[in-house]
Amino acid sequence: MTSTLQIDPSDPAGQLITNLRQLAELSSDEGGAQRVAWTDTWAAAREWYLGLLAELPVEVERDEAGNIWATLPGARPEALIIGSHLDSVPGGGWLDGCLGVLAGLEVIRGLAAAGTPPLTVKLVDWADEEGARFGLSLIGSSAAAERIDPEFLRTLVDADGITAPEALEAHGVDIASMPRAAARLRDAIAYLELHIEQGPVLEALGLPLAAVTGTYGVERWSVHFEGQSAHAGSTPMDRRRDALLSASRLALEARELAVELGGLSTVGRIDSAPGIATALSGLAVAMIDQRHTDGQALDDLHDGTRAAATRIAEADGVTVSWNPIFRMRPLAFDASLVERAARIVAELQGDEARIPSGPLHDAVHIAGTGLPTVMLFVRSKRGLSHTREEDTDVADLALGLAALQRLADSVLAAHGQH
Amino acid sequence: MTSTLQIDPSDPAGQLITNLRQLAELSSDEGGAQRVAWTDTWAAAREWYLGLLAELPVEVERDEAGNIWATLPGARPEALIIGSHLDSVPGGGWLDGCLGVLAGLEVIRGLAAAGTPPLTVKLVDWADEEGARFGLSLIGSSAAAERIDPEFLRTLVDADGITAPEALEAHGVDIASMPRAAARLRDAIAYLELHIEQGPVLEALGLPLAAVTGTYGVERWSVHFEGQSAHAGSTPMDRRRDALLSASRLALEARELAVELGGLSTVGRIDSAPGIATALSGLAVAMIDQRHTDGQALDDLHDGTRAAATRIAEADGVTVSWNPIFRMRPLAFDASLVERAARIVAELQGDEARIPSGPLHDAVHIAGTGLPTVMLFVRSKRGLSHTREEDTDVADLALGLAALQRLADSVLAAHGQH
Repeated sequence: MTSTLQIDPSDPAGQLITNLRQLAELSSDEGGAQRVAWTDTWAAAREWYLGLLAELPVEVERDEAGNIWATLPGARPEALIIGSHLDSVPGGGWLDGCLGVLAGLEVIRGLAAAGTPPLTVKLVDWADEEGARFGLSLIGSSAAAERIDPEFLRTLVDADGITAPEALEAHGVDIASMPRAAARLRDAIAYLELHIEQGPVLEALGLPLAAVTGTYGVERWSVHFEGQSAHAGSTPMDRRRDALLSASRLALEARELAVELGGLSTVGRIDSAPGIATALSGLAVAMIDQRHTDGQALDDLHDGTRAAATRIAEADGVTVSWNPIFRMRPLAFDASLVERAARIVAELQGDEARIPSGPLHDAVHIAGTGLPTVMLFVRSKRGLSHTREEDTDVADLALGLAALQRLADSVLAAHGQH
Repeated sequence: MTSTLQIDPSDPAGQLITNLRQLAELSSDEGGAQRVAWTDTWAAAREWYLGLLAELPVEVERDEAGNIWATLPGARPEALIIGSHLDSVPGGGWLDGCLGVLAGLEVIRGLAAAGTPPLTVKLVDWADEEGARFGLSLIGSSAAAERIDPEFLRTLVDADGITAPEALEAHGVDIASMPRAAARLRDAIAYLELHIEQGPVLEALGLPLAAVTGTYGVERWSVHFEGQSAHAGSTPMDRRRDALLSASRLALEARELAVELGGLSTVGRIDSAPGIATALSGLAVAMIDQRHTDGQALDDLHDGTRAAATRIAEADGVTVSWNPIFRMRPLAFDASLVERAARIVAELQGDEARIPSGPLHDAVHIAGTGLPTVMLFVRSKRGLSHTREEDTDVADLALGLAALQRLADSVLAAHGQH
């Protein structure tokens, strides 16, 4: 949150930074941002946001899934939607999610000041992007995209034993009605979202901005190796069936395959049993997350890793089985919107930059409905996010806002001509 | 606990099996043996054992460390000691520890029936060999060997928050007085212990018995790798400093080195942080246990593994540090007693067999005092121990008892001639 720039609150970028800092102040503690969805801190942050919206000539509504919509009426009912989320992980940063909402607010402010836009413009604050309380992310946008499973949502319970139906009802959301939020997308012609990158790619490229080409496909599994637990002091090396060694081999081979195929492979955790210093492990469970932007390459990466696991298990005299945790196919954002965003990014920073998104965003669900969608990324310092250390230079944030404004103008101009 | 042998309770082996089964019945539940030291179940098992001793012409005493001594007076005051432990791990088997005590009982019974032995013979049930309640093993024997640290013992707390001083006092042991148990070893001329192998070596050799040559030296450490946690979906493979991968590499390299140097290396557990599927690990802690019978080879194994860890850390861009958990030099049992035991084993089974012990035993502390010591191992099925599946054929147990009897007779005869 350091800056060498003078902040002018009368300027849109200055206003954006001022608002981001105010929001951080009212919703953070020494551990970072605490705007976890369906909590009092989140509700207070949204009340503050409603106060900002009240200064603008917009109609404000809360939909059946708890998403907050601000509508600036245009010459025609077709709508350009700009969106992101105010909720954060516990101990989060000052930018993840809220940057997109508060930058959208400045875009609306600018459009409203310029008169009636050719199309209607809507700004949405999606409810519960992070999934920090119930473990299910992208809740509000999945409701709008008719991808939500109310029966499943009803079964979720937080760490304190409070059920999702109870917590959502305390914030005015009835789970049975959530799919009705889909009506909000009916008149839409495009969806735009500005977000911090949350990764180190732009910093490595030395560039502040990128058009986002789409999101990685994901294969997230738990891999169970089963051997035979035995005493570490009495079992010769050649008589062991050590499941933890097999899991270790898998982590390393998965990494090599990802490098080879240009994807990502991460083993973020290995649990083992009995899990003590004096015994080799009869059971080891590795959590693996694999990603690629190309569907065929993702399949090659995942299938290759499974083949490696089978080979490792045979060599080590253990068995292996795979259980799915989360799977998603790669998704490409709208080609013409990506072109448009890439052109604007190039105008603003001199260089083209197109990168895929590793993390998922609300935009993924919206793009999944067929609505033309694109995102803009602004550089993250050290690639850090989901921590209070998350940061981006103020100059980069200003550039991100400028890109979102130009992109909105460009979409409105193109559609306004029809 | 299956047997194809007819048990004759009037025969020493039959009496031993009957007693082992009775003890299992009175101190086990569906999870296995529950004779954890300093618990009611352990105390009840010892009361039952005192009942058995009452049938014999022995003097029974409890020493300052809670060890139970049964003394059969001989022609001379110098004493041959036979010992082991009745306590078990939670969910233990029917043989670990109690085999040695109850076999010793049959040896005493036989000697008593034959008249006055040339030397005094003592049978000891060491208190708390397993260390299951307070995490510190070999408590009773370390007190007798003057290796106990009362100040350290005083600091220990069990899982329910009960302190070691409270728990020991409930069983009549005052920690300050424990080192006085050392007086019990003053007249001793040798120490013998029969135990199940708890490993698969004898089963692989196709032999029921072995003389134990000594115990492995142990280097047990926690190895901390520190890299940088980052998002699994937004961090390119070539920009990662993944501590869990470094720990995995260490586990595999430590294994290769152990194979090469003829020792043992086990990574039984790897903890990582943040420890979630969607992040690579900024921290990974591997618990490593390394053993060798030769001191120089143990040093080579350990030093080589540390060098490998340093090399791995440099290559992976992480840091590494080592924290000791438990270290012990290799220990060789008394050469002449090992010879004597090996000869008896060869007489009984036709083949020589000498193997080192991976697990530690009370005999290690006793040998450490300079008292000539040796152990006998009897074959374990599938190498399993510290589980209710622990088992040994009744015929092998009978052979183990016969070996202990002959070894005691042989030592008594040798010393009786002086």
